[in-house]
Amino acid sequence: MPKILLDTQLKIDARTIETQKKLYAAMIHFYEEKHSFTELTVTQVWHYAQVGRTTFYRHHQDLTDIITVQLLILINDFHRRIDSVTTLNLETGSQAIVTEIRNNPLLFQLMAWSQSSDLMVHILSGEVLNILNIREHAFDHQPILATILAQNILNFALTISTHPEFNFEQVQQLFNLTIPNLPAPID
Amino acid sequence: MPKILLDTQLKIDARTIETQKKLYAAMIHFYEEKHSFTELTVTQVWHYAQVGRTTFYRHHQDLTDIITVQLLILINDFHRRIDSVTTLNLETGSQAIVTEIRNNPLLFQLMAWSQSSDLMVHILSGEVLNILNIREHAFDHQPILATILAQNILNFALTISTHPEFNFEQVQQLFNLTIPNLPAPID
Repeated sequence: MPKILLDTQLKIDARTIETQKKLYAAMIHFYEEKHSFTELTVTQVWHYAQVGRTTFYRHHQDLTDIITVQLLILINDFHRRIDSVTTLNLETGSQAIVTEIRNNPLLFQLMAWSQSSDLMVHILSGEVLNILNIREHAFDHQPILATILAQNILNFALTISTHPEFNFEQVQQLFNLTIPNLPAPID
Repeated sequence: MPKILLDTQLKIDARTIETQKKLYAAMIHFYEEKHSFTELTVTQVWHYAQVGRTTFYRHHQDLTDIITVQLLILINDFHRRIDSVTTLNLETGSQAIVTEIRNNPLLFQLMAWSQSSDLMVHILSGEVLNILNIREHAFDHQPILATILAQNILNFALTISTHPEFNFEQVQQLFNLTIPNLPAPID
C-alpha cells in the first residue's frame, strides 16, 4: 500500500509528482515492450526511470504502488473536475467519469497487465462509498453496493481502454447503458 | 470448448446429465478441500467422480469444460424459467436472473477458483447478445455492450456467491441498483 494513501487529503507535492511521472512512464515502457510483469524487478524500473533507489522507496513499496498512486492522481483529478462543474447532476457526473477513463487508457491496461484489479477495486470502492454517503443513499448495505459499482466501473474502463475506435459520445452512451443511475438521494 | 456447445439447441441427454452431475460434484469436492486448481488433474477428477476416462472425454476436453457445461445448464434453466413466466418484463426478467444466481453459488465460486471468468464472460455475452437482438435494441455496438453487461452480471454473481447472508429481496435490490434496465425495445 503506498504511503501516500495514508494522507486522505491526497496532497502530493511537486517533487513526488515528478518522480511518479518518471516511474509511471517507465512502467508504460516495460508494458509496451511486452515485458512480463511478474518478472519485472523494482531495480529495473527505478534504473530505467532514472530515479534513485531511496527516492523510489520514499513513496512506493513495490511496483503495484506506482499504479495505485496513478489511480489516486486520477481520483484527485476527478474531484477537481467535479468541483469545477456548475451543476452537478447524473449527466455531468458520468461525463466526468468518462473523461477520466478516456484520458487514462494505459492506466487501465497496466492494471490488467499487473493483475492488480482487485486492489484497484478496493481503492475505487472507497471512493464510491464516499459518493454514496454524500448522497445519503437509502440502501442498507452500502459497502457491498460500492464494491459492485467499483467493479463495474473498473471493468468498463478496462474494456474501453482496449477500444480506441469509440469516440466520446459512444463511450458515454455505453456507460449510461451499463452503469445505472442510482436513485436520487432522499431529502 | 465443450462439444456440447456446438449443439445450439443445448439438448443434453439424460446420460450426459448424469455424468456431468458426478463430474461437477467432484469439482466441488476438490474446491471445498481447497485443492489447487492448477495442480488438479483430469484423472483425479474422473477417478473421484467414478466416471470412466472415455465417458469423460466424450463430452469434455478439460476441467474447465465441466464448469462451462454447468453454466450452459444454468442458461438452459434460465430459458425454461423465462418461458414459464406469463408476463415477461424487466421485473420478472431480473427475478429469473437473481434466482439462477442464488441457486448456483458454488458454480460462481468454481469460476473464480479455476480463473475461467474470461471464458464464462464470453459464453454469457453470447446469451446477452441474443437477448439484445430479440429486443431490437438501438445501440450500434451490441457486441461490446453485451460483453460489458455479461462482465457486470458475472461479477455481480461472483460477489453475491460469497455473501450468503443476503436474502432474495436484498440481492434483487442490489441487482436493480447495479445492473441497469436497458431502454425498452423500439416498436
